[in-house]
Amino acid sequence: MQRYFSNSKDNDVYTLSNDDSYHITKVMRMKINDLIEIVDDKKTYICKIISFNPVKAEVKEMLNENNELEKKIIIIQSLVNETKMDLILQKCCELGMYAFHPYKAKNSVVKENDKIDKKLVRWQKIVKEASEQSKRNIIPVVGRLLNIDDLCNIEADLKILLSVNEVSKNLKNVLHANNSYDTIIIVVGPEGGFTNLEEEKLISRGFVRTSLGARVLRSETASIVALSMMNYEWMV
Amino acid sequence: MQRYFSNSKDNDVYTLSNDDSYHITKVMRMKINDLIEIVDDKKTYICKIISFNPVKAEVKEMLNENNELEKKIIIIQSLVNETKMDLILQKCCELGMYAFHPYKAKNSVVKENDKIDKKLVRWQKIVKEASEQSKRNIIPVVGRLLNIDDLCNIEADLKILLSVNEVSKNLKNVLHANNSYDTIIIVVGPEGGFTNLEEEKLISRGFVRTSLGARVLRSETASIVALSMMNYEWMV
Repeated sequence: MQRYFSNSKDNDVYTLSNDDSYHITKVMRMKINDLIEIVDDKKTYICKIISFNPVKAEVKEMLNENNELEKKIIIIQSLVNETKMDLILQKCCELGMYAFHPYKAKNSVVKENDKIDKKLVRWQKIVKEASEQSKRNIIPVVGRLLNIDDLCNIEADLKILLSVNEVSKNLKNVLHANNSYDTIIIVVGPEGGFTNLEEEKLISRGFVRTSLGARVLRSETASIVALSMMNYEWMV
Repeated sequence: MQRYFSNSKDNDVYTLSNDDSYHITKVMRMKINDLIEIVDDKKTYICKIISFNPVKAEVKEMLNENNELEKKIIIIQSLVNETKMDLILQKCCELGMYAFHPYKAKNSVVKENDKIDKKLVRWQKIVKEASEQSKRNIIPVVGRLLNIDDLCNIEADLKILLSVNEVSKNLKNVLHANNSYDTIIIVVGPEGGFTNLEEEKLISRGFVRTSLGARVLRSETASIVALSMMNYEWMV
């Protein structure tokens, strides 16, 4: 069943946004009485469409489900090109990330700051659609572009710096060595990797150099793999 | 250092293929005396370029490295569109897959058999390039298009059918319940999922319905996530 997010409720009837109304009527070609899932404040309701322009849908039943990870994982991704960024956002959303920030790394090939506001809007839209498709109970927030000082000052229970540096410990060891954490940050470098200065600054602020295995992963693969591995660690 | 595969050696001098020679001279713009890595029969050699047209390179040193997984993982992916197939091949190669087959599923949107020979050539090229980039010691083989009868008759120590069916066991339970396996097959359904008939046929031939977690993953995400999780399971 198609999922949408809404918090516009009046007497058990949700009014969907113009974008979602367009999707329901023009893309999905749904009809009056068709059922959709609406997520509001992390709770999921089965709703029946009762009118169009904009779509209104009446709550029929509350679902008892929670597809969220127990830990909050924040991905901080060095700027890479658009196609790769889109892939990372979509896949990390499917894999349960809690929030996302782009990072302007020294070696990032993509450097334009001027278009960043437009990009943030686009990225948030990708994340919204991926959240609907993968049946999330929240839409992860795509936050502002960070610089090295922001990164140094960020707080979390576990701060992971993905690195091919040979002193890196592997992710399993890092996760098993730290067993009480609710919020985890994963920072991923750009294609050229972090500079030594960047790595040293982050290490001095409590980041842990972490490896995902023997093979060399591309920047756009690393966050997806790290999140997959965490999903496996917490699988019961 | 840039990696290439070759088995054309004469007195410690490798002769590279025309494609690789083009890459070395025109794309990488290397010069005489520049160093490259050449992998031959799973062993990696540091070699010095000694002449062009085609590139010849002399062995300087053997590296003591093995970036391969101990288990052989064969990915069988239902036909999905080209962009998704390219993504799967590149990422699964980075993550250590041993071999790959496309599968013509009942619900595959992509059905053309006629272009499959051209596609197989293209896919093998993607896998070769990803193997060089991710420092593999082998190039995984992209095998022929399989049908349901082929799948039913395929042999492996552990046969995993990725399925959102609610009776699926999660991957961790499946891997922990089977501890002596060298060859693992992972079969991934198309966007519309396997038909009941397909699933039942495969289950009757020893495939295990396996889930990757609570959230709904796209077809092109599933194999990447499964391989990431296996990499984590075997991390030491």
